[in-house]
Amino acid sequence: MKPVMLSGDRPTGKLHLGHLVGSLQQRVRLQTTHQAYVMIADTQALTDHMHDPQLIQRAILDVAKDYLSVGINPEQTTIFLQSGIPELSELTCYFLNLVTLGRLARNPTVKTEMQQKGYRNAVVPAGFLCYPVSQAADITAFQANCVPAGDDQLPMIEQTNELVRRFNTLYQTSCLKECQLYPGTTGRLMGLDGQSKASKSLNNAIFLSDTPDVVQQKVMRMFTDPQHVRVNDPGHVAGNAVFAYLDAFCPDQTQVARFKEHYQKGGLGDTVLKQYLNDVLQQVLAPIRTIRSTLDDTTIISMLRMGTHHARSAASHTLQQVRDAMGIYSL
Amino acid sequence: MKPVMLSGDRPTGKLHLGHLVGSLQQRVRLQTTHQAYVMIADTQALTDHMHDPQLIQRAILDVAKDYLSVGINPEQTTIFLQSGIPELSELTCYFLNLVTLGRLARNPTVKTEMQQKGYRNAVVPAGFLCYPVSQAADITAFQANCVPAGDDQLPMIEQTNELVRRFNTLYQTSCLKECQLYPGTTGRLMGLDGQSKASKSLNNAIFLSDTPDVVQQKVMRMFTDPQHVRVNDPGHVAGNAVFAYLDAFCPDQTQVARFKEHYQKGGLGDTVLKQYLNDVLQQVLAPIRTIRSTLDDTTIISMLRMGTHHARSAASHTLQQVRDAMGIYSL
Repeated sequence: MKPVMLSGDRPTGKLHLGHLVGSLQQRVRLQTTHQAYVMIADTQALTDHMHDPQLIQRAILDVAKDYLSVGINPEQTTIFLQSGIPELSELTCYFLNLVTLGRLARNPTVKTEMQQKGYRNAVVPAGFLCYPVSQAADITAFQANCVPAGDDQLPMIEQTNELVRRFNTLYQTSCLKECQLYPGTTGRLMGLDGQSKASKSLNNAIFLSDTPDVVQQKVMRMFTDPQHVRVNDPGHVAGNAVFAYLDAFCPDQTQVARFKEHYQKGGLGDTVLKQYLNDVLQQVLAPIRTIRSTLDDTTIISMLRMGTHHARSAASHTLQQVRDAMGIYSL
Repeated sequence: MKPVMLSGDRPTGKLHLGHLVGSLQQRVRLQTTHQAYVMIADTQALTDHMHDPQLIQRAILDVAKDYLSVGINPEQTTIFLQSGIPELSELTCYFLNLVTLGRLARNPTVKTEMQQKGYRNAVVPAGFLCYPVSQAADITAFQANCVPAGDDQLPMIEQTNELVRRFNTLYQTSCLKECQLYPGTTGRLMGLDGQSKASKSLNNAIFLSDTPDVVQQKVMRMFTDPQHVRVNDPGHVAGNAVFAYLDAFCPDQTQVARFKEHYQKGGLGDTVLKQYLNDVLQQVLAPIRTIRSTLDDTTIISMLRMGTHHARSAASHTLQQVRDAMGIYSL
């Protein structure tokens, strides 16, 4: 039996380079050694996009295409749509009885996101506050022991494992499995504007589906060091988006080290660096773009339909074990 | 098209005389004029009995027998098991996005129940706080416009209707229907011990399935007026459980009025009154007991299976309308 990997994304826009280093590359590697599930979390996206379901609907095929473009292989990875698995809602409802309101309100990831979205305690949608429970349902439904995601997701994994232990203890079973976070190869990727995070909502990211021209324009406008005005001025590397992207994507890290030294001394201009970075990123994105150009909607929908069917039978198997453990009446 | 009625009970024990006047008699009357659904709410019972699923499992058949014994007719009323309708969990998860944490915490029925159960804000199980949302899912899934229940349930109906209006406005649809409470014929029935409410958990109720002997013993121990020590002492009628039960069940209310006058003047003993009440209650319970004696588990299970199948197809129809209105992707 291979270990099980589950990962996924909210379909609220196309995926970008931050996703690539944050978890997509990890998923591609893990799919050869793991039984791999990748979920398009359209139901979870509703917890903070309930006003705009059209945005979610439009993003689903984009995200699926992003997956295939980066090398997630539907013959190795079950790619599925969350809303096609009603078993996850049923599990969520059972798990909600095993977690207190106080515990939900203390989840650091949820607290940070509530601040970002301007949700105070009283006005936070109940579904948003409860989404870690829904994530626990997703992870446990597939008996996943490995979750590739950014380390900002660690509190989610901890909350899932708490629920697993609580369920297994209360109902004297071992039917649910604990899981571990597999962080990406690099840390969180900086935004083009020097903000701490590349994000679709902040519009400061290079999307996997951006054309070569758009990529070049975005690179040329990237945030560097505002004090590095003339070429000969010494420049800062920390907080400089161009170096952050070179760190993450340049295959020749010796060259990157030389650039950093030169930049800090002075004498290396932003434009030269950005042209170099543009070449690096175009090389990263070219094969992704090539695969993407071969994908049509019909193939994608049919792939999602098959994946969802397969995922549903796995989730249904776990749900039956959960119901049996809880002593839910079987008619 | 007949109007639709939905009602139900948490299967946490057998039903008692308080249920009879609180909602069962109303359901029997309404089943001739309404398309009637009666739900055994085993999933909802888990929100505060997650530690004791066996208790729920045992109570399901008892409650179903209580229904049939009082005249709920499975040819007129769809009697079903909540856990057999996964569509209700899915609806609940969607509705959770449309209600704020503050609104849930303000629900007066939930606040009262939290106090009774000793749940403070931080330690209340999330599922318990959210159960009005799950009730809204139950009611709307069957397009119910009529909910027979005690008037303590009014805040639940209001919260359901708020959700209906919010959903219909947000997604520009009319697929969900508002509902109305149909209160029972009498108010809430007092407990045998003079407490404000007859309740299985307080063990102060006469169950529909109690034997004649048990009924008599319970009547003889009923709370009357502690100041009415000797027969000739004047006695109080208010707060006197014997009079509360005579009010609720005696077909000869002229006689009850005469008893009250006599009791208040003095000269009418508790034992005489209790013997009279015992006769009244035995007459109420005898036909219920007769029907109950004809019911066997196999018939009940088969009836529940058919009812649940029928209810599921109705809920599934509504869920599809809800998904379409929200623009959930159909694979």
